Amino acid sequence: MTKQELIKQIKLKKSFLCIGLDVDLEKIPKHLLALEDPIFEFNKQIIDATHHLAVAYKPNTAFYEAYGIKGWLSLEKTIHYLNTNYPEIFTIADAKRGDIGNTSTMYAKAFFEDLNFDSVTVAPYMGSDSVEPFLAFKDKFTILLALTSNKGGLDFQGLKVGKKELYKEVLKTALTWENSNQLMFVVGATKAAYFKEIRKIVPNHFLLVPGVGAQGGNLQDVCKYGISKDIGLLINSSRGIIYAGNNMDFALKAQKKAWELQQGMAEILLTI
Amino acid sequence: MTKQELIKQIKLKKSFLCIGLDVDLEKIPKHLLALEDPIFEFNKQIIDATHHLAVAYKPNTAFYEAYGIKGWLSLEKTIHYLNTNYPEIFTIADAKRGDIGNTSTMYAKAFFEDLNFDSVTVAPYMGSDSVEPFLAFKDKFTILLALTSNKGGLDFQGLKVGKKELYKEVLKTALTWENSNQLMFVVGATKAAYFKEIRKIVPNHFLLVPGVGAQGGNLQDVCKYGISKDIGLLINSSRGIIYAGNNMDFALKAQKKAWELQQGMAEILLTI
Repeated sequence: MTKQELIKQIKLKKSFLCIGLDVDLEKIPKHLLALEDPIFEFNKQIIDATHHLAVAYKPNTAFYEAYGIKGWLSLEKTIHYLNTNYPEIFTIADAKRGDIGNTSTMYAKAFFEDLNFDSVTVAPYMGSDSVEPFLAFKDKFTILLALTSNKGGLDFQGLKVGKKELYKEVLKTALTWENSNQLMFVVGATKAAYFKEIRKIVPNHFLLVPGVGAQGGNLQDVCKYGISKDIGLLINSSRGIIYAGNNMDFALKAQKKAWELQQGMAEILLTI
Repeated sequence: MTKQELIKQIKLKKSFLCIGLDVDLEKIPKHLLALEDPIFEFNKQIIDATHHLAVAYKPNTAFYEAYGIKGWLSLEKTIHYLNTNYPEIFTIADAKRGDIGNTSTMYAKAFFEDLNFDSVTVAPYMGSDSVEPFLAFKDKFTILLALTSNKGGLDFQGLKVGKKELYKEVLKTALTWENSNQLMFVVGATKAAYFKEIRKIVPNHFLLVPGVGAQGGNLQDVCKYGISKDIGLLINSSRGIIYAGNNMDFALKAQKKAWELQQGMAEILLTI
């Protein structure tokens, strides 16, 4: 998918919502556990109920790997279901990979070719040649961790390198890499004011923003400072949507939560 | 496996060699491709031919993920084969994972419980709560990326944070985390002199050292500065060993390369 196609979908749906498919067998409705592939069945129902409200889905690969081959199969079926039935959806493998050159190429093949995701999240610690192999894939996006919303996020990301924090150096340096127009960045929503300075460094790139909802970020604040002329935001919610209900009507409950977020986004889009 | 058991194996075998199982279908001998699972068959023959010369094996998960479900099955069979036939071997999932708390726990379960690896490599960028969930597993080791040997390794790791480089800050900070005695660190071998300063920060922890051989590091130099009273080194070689030959005798050729490295290690162990 191209950036223009993604922007078009955002405008059509009046939504820049990304739904995180972090599926934990201990949290999904009990009646699904009797089925052959409860994880895929859960995802399928969530996707069918919310696809018109979201522009992106983001399975976190950890949740699938934790179940071994069966989990990997559920992931394959989920991305195949998305690509077949909702090709207009932007798909994100939240894998946080990163390794030396030839190994990063193997990861890129795994996610971009074998599974056919539109994008993958990547960690920056190993530098340019750990990320550029991902950027070499045409019409695929590499979403680099910049500022994460977890408690320990600032342990290293917040360290001062000269006069500015490490995460700003990561943003600045990444722009010098080959095919940097294929980059997006993960920026957590816990402190909305950070977006102001981040937008000075990356005015036009898409930011994937976790942490609205469960982790305490506020949609209006994030958008106030983070939105760009092309919108440039994908706001992710995982648990707040997919575990909104825990009975037969879980997908409807999820739809309601997604709708509430989408309505907030539609209002914000009216103002830009 | 405990640290003491690993040290005992090193002394018994007079080896601190780790063999990287980075298996690429385009590089393995052609006669294996007719078999049902060429990757597992390749690993099995390499392991059978070298297990007495190495104390550790390290499959890089990227190479398995690149082949989807089939690759993941090959990885499962490989770790199962090691655990069943060579329980004295220390196993490393070179996965370079790292995510927020509950997600890191899922990764830890995947590698420590589902696959039963002794250790996993983890990236530090997301800070304490992305690593501590791995450290919570008893008798399992978390191998944190500190200084990597790739071209872009110093892009961020080498940045000055106050008076010292980021990778030193990572080492120092990691020691303050819960169960930090279950840590090991990845330190690339490209500049042996770095080990002198690294040992001032982490005098006793094991260091996993890639880059001896293919990436240009020198065994003697690394040991001169890097070896500790408990040896404290696992020197990894991947391509230099597993692709030493490309015909029917590939496992024997790999054995010869592993033997050469082990002989060098045995000599060094005589001197400490």
